[in-house]
Amino acid sequence: MGLPPNQTDNGHGAPVDVLVIGAGLAGLCAGRYLVRRNVSCTVIEARERVGGRTQSQRLGNDTVDLGGQWIGPMQSRLKALTDELNVATFPQYHDGRKLLSWGGKIQSYTGDLPSLSPLAQLELLWNDYRLKSHWRTLPPERPWSAPRAAEWDGMTVETWKQRHMRSKGARLFIDVVVRAVLTSEPRDVSFLYFLNYLRSGRGLESLISIAGGAQQERFVGGAQQISERLTEGLGHRVVLESPVRSIEQDVDGVTVRTDKGPFQGRYVIVAIPPVLAGRIHYAASLPAKRDQLTARIPMGSVIKYVAVYERPFWRTAGFSGEVVSDTGPTVTTFDDSSHDGTQPALVTFSDAVAARQWSGRTPQERQQAVLAEFARFFGPEALQPTHFAEKDWNLDPWSRGCYVGVMGPGVMTTFGEALRERCGRIHWSGTETADEWMGYLDGAVQSGDRAAAEVCARLQRAGEPAVALGKRL
Amino acid sequence: MGLPPNQTDNGHGAPVDVLVIGAGLAGLCAGRYLVRRNVSCTVIEARERVGGRTQSQRLGNDTVDLGGQWIGPMQSRLKALTDELNVATFPQYHDGRKLLSWGGKIQSYTGDLPSLSPLAQLELLWNDYRLKSHWRTLPPERPWSAPRAAEWDGMTVETWKQRHMRSKGARLFIDVVVRAVLTSEPRDVSFLYFLNYLRSGRGLESLISIAGGAQQERFVGGAQQISERLTEGLGHRVVLESPVRSIEQDVDGVTVRTDKGPFQGRYVIVAIPPVLAGRIHYAASLPAKRDQLTARIPMGSVIKYVAVYERPFWRTAGFSGEVVSDTGPTVTTFDDSSHDGTQPALVTFSDAVAARQWSGRTPQERQQAVLAEFARFFGPEALQPTHFAEKDWNLDPWSRGCYVGVMGPGVMTTFGEALRERCGRIHWSGTETADEWMGYLDGAVQSGDRAAAEVCARLQRAGEPAVALGKRL
Repeated sequence: MGLPPNQTDNGHGAPVDVLVIGAGLAGLCAGRYLVRRNVSCTVIEARERVGGRTQSQRLGNDTVDLGGQWIGPMQSRLKALTDELNVATFPQYHDGRKLLSWGGKIQSYTGDLPSLSPLAQLELLWNDYRLKSHWRTLPPERPWSAPRAAEWDGMTVETWKQRHMRSKGARLFIDVVVRAVLTSEPRDVSFLYFLNYLRSGRGLESLISIAGGAQQERFVGGAQQISERLTEGLGHRVVLESPVRSIEQDVDGVTVRTDKGPFQGRYVIVAIPPVLAGRIHYAASLPAKRDQLTARIPMGSVIKYVAVYERPFWRTAGFSGEVVSDTGPTVTTFDDSSHDGTQPALVTFSDAVAARQWSGRTPQERQQAVLAEFARFFGPEALQPTHFAEKDWNLDPWSRGCYVGVMGPGVMTTFGEALRERCGRIHWSGTETADEWMGYLDGAVQSGDRAAAEVCARLQRAGEPAVALGKRL
Repeated sequence: MGLPPNQTDNGHGAPVDVLVIGAGLAGLCAGRYLVRRNVSCTVIEARERVGGRTQSQRLGNDTVDLGGQWIGPMQSRLKALTDELNVATFPQYHDGRKLLSWGGKIQSYTGDLPSLSPLAQLELLWNDYRLKSHWRTLPPERPWSAPRAAEWDGMTVETWKQRHMRSKGARLFIDVVVRAVLTSEPRDVSFLYFLNYLRSGRGLESLISIAGGAQQERFVGGAQQISERLTEGLGHRVVLESPVRSIEQDVDGVTVRTDKGPFQGRYVIVAIPPVLAGRIHYAASLPAKRDQLTARIPMGSVIKYVAVYERPFWRTAGFSGEVVSDTGPTVTTFDDSSHDGTQPALVTFSDAVAARQWSGRTPQERQQAVLAEFARFFGPEALQPTHFAEKDWNLDPWSRGCYVGVMGPGVMTTFGEALRERCGRIHWSGTETADEWMGYLDGAVQSGDRAAAEVCARLQRAGEPAVALGKRL
């Protein structure tokens, strides 16, 4: 697996087989996959930390997650990985009454849904069936080739909602789902993309549920640990604080230029969100379809907040901590107490339009507004947290929004193919490229393994001819 | 207008009052405005040429335009500028029969519209009225605040088309309009954005017409001349081949870092499309709303082709050269002969989905396919051009698509404000920020003058206090 001798002096050790860009979960899983097969690699990260969209932080006596934090029962790839890495999980607390704040009025409920009008309940039941019958027609690897793909990619979720739901309750439900799951408004999202997200996450109920769903369990010690333990296994192969500025490829290999100097390899795996991949300079230029794709997958908008308290006063009062609100900064709220219950806490999210409104305020204004909402839900004790933390993901230059890159109408049918299609020596990874649990940690694991397997297959092919870049690109 | 002494040694002469990024028409007009008011400025351009989305090239014995090329009768800003610069215009040729190729079948016609079914004609008439009554309600500077803005920004043009047009002919008409005017598919575009584009360009008829419309006249010697003559006036102030990598601002001023070193000034005017502005690094970070906006205005998709011939065989046969086609690479075609008629030529565009399909092919394949279509329209003489030129704007790294940045649903209502709102010492220009003739040369002129006027007003304000960046940002 040698490189021409003129490529050995790059100041960062010898050239490697594979350069991986991004030390989030996808990139680190790619690294692990390669190292296990004795393929040399370097994982290059812009930040001073690993973990990407997972970020854990000490707060009070516990570690809290300011990024991704949940694992569901059907996320087998993530489960296998965390078992292997000895990262323990514990159930998301959800005992007690839930709250819905709708137009400023609070109602509490115990079942899956708040008490909506009979029409709303009927519409939700019928449309749940309709959505399922739609997303089941999507081929997982090519959802844009479904028989009705053009029709569904021609409209927003908002249009579909208006067309099929008359009741305010059912419409509110769709708003909340899109905000909570995609940190976007229904008008921002292609209906085809939404259907594919449902497919990828095993359906609506799976995506929005705690027990049996994507929010079932949390990680003892925080989700960033997964990336940290993967990094321990990779050792010197992970290089931090090295923003990638350009990727140059020719018939011999690849040069990746960073703020810390160049790296050289035979192949590259780009394991960062498309919107960030689009900010790298490529030579030769990427195909127009790929370049224009990266201009069409903006990240959703979210700010996350955690408040730590002396006592779990909401539990004492019979509440689970779950709140959904259609006003103010707290769109969805959950109990966020430590695994042993010794440190009570609440976590909440400004999703979508709320994130866009509250991102312009000061941290003090946000904290005050969040605590005022908590007090409205659970009483005045909420105004006195012992600790408070927040993260505005929209302002993080190495994410530029969260949780995931989202497609508006017209993008998937015209540009979808470019999401995973390799460009010469460049392979694409990151949870946006997963066909199961896209947008989740589990999708990141899948995408890292898949991209690494693609590269391994090329390396193994004996006497692989020099890639005709002009043609492939 | 002094700067602290530690900012004088930047290797590019003394600091200036205003740094302008982009030597397209917008940036050069900003430069002209500033220089006329004795405000010092430097215009920094990434390319080795000025003119941005206008690009003229010698082909045969004439200069042809591979970028923007038309001026309409209501584009008074552009008209005043070109008169002053002594750039002459001449009428776009349009005498004779036009062609519509629909599903591979060709029909010719003489009026404004091909012979469509009575239903199609009725639907077009009625919906033309409907569109006009809609866009007239949009406030030019804040179209997102129109009474029905949320409803219109919740859907695609495709959704509106499906809802209000039943006939195939009327639907085809909308497809062609959106492709030709916005180089996008109806499913890609927010209906609110489309309405605002109609408003900004004085209505549908104005946008799509030759006589009396936006394609009425061309420039003798090509449209890039306008920028070249502006550059002559600016002299040493225009610096080419200097891609901007970062913009740093503090209470004292601004540092712009380029591949040719740093530039310093008191204010910056960023006169490039939002998608390119989003690829620059900013310190302090921009507000989330501005950053997320730049991830949500992709450029349309277009490849432009010019074929030069010995004889104007289409004119001889009674055709104007105008063709609209819903298949193949030639979406819209026009006569492109030289102003004195001595060099006959045709110009055509792969717009929207056609551009995305044909961008992946080789130039030879494209040329062959374009000429085959010309032959289908006008006879076999079309297969023998004396010269042929093309430009794939999607692959140009300093445009990344053309003609203009386009908004899908949800963008304008949530992020529209950030389009022109200054961020500390940074002011935004470029045709996307115009409120008249947005997307056209005339809009570029307006946006350059407007941004320069904003900065002049700040400079003139005696004893302007140091900008509290943390707050403004």
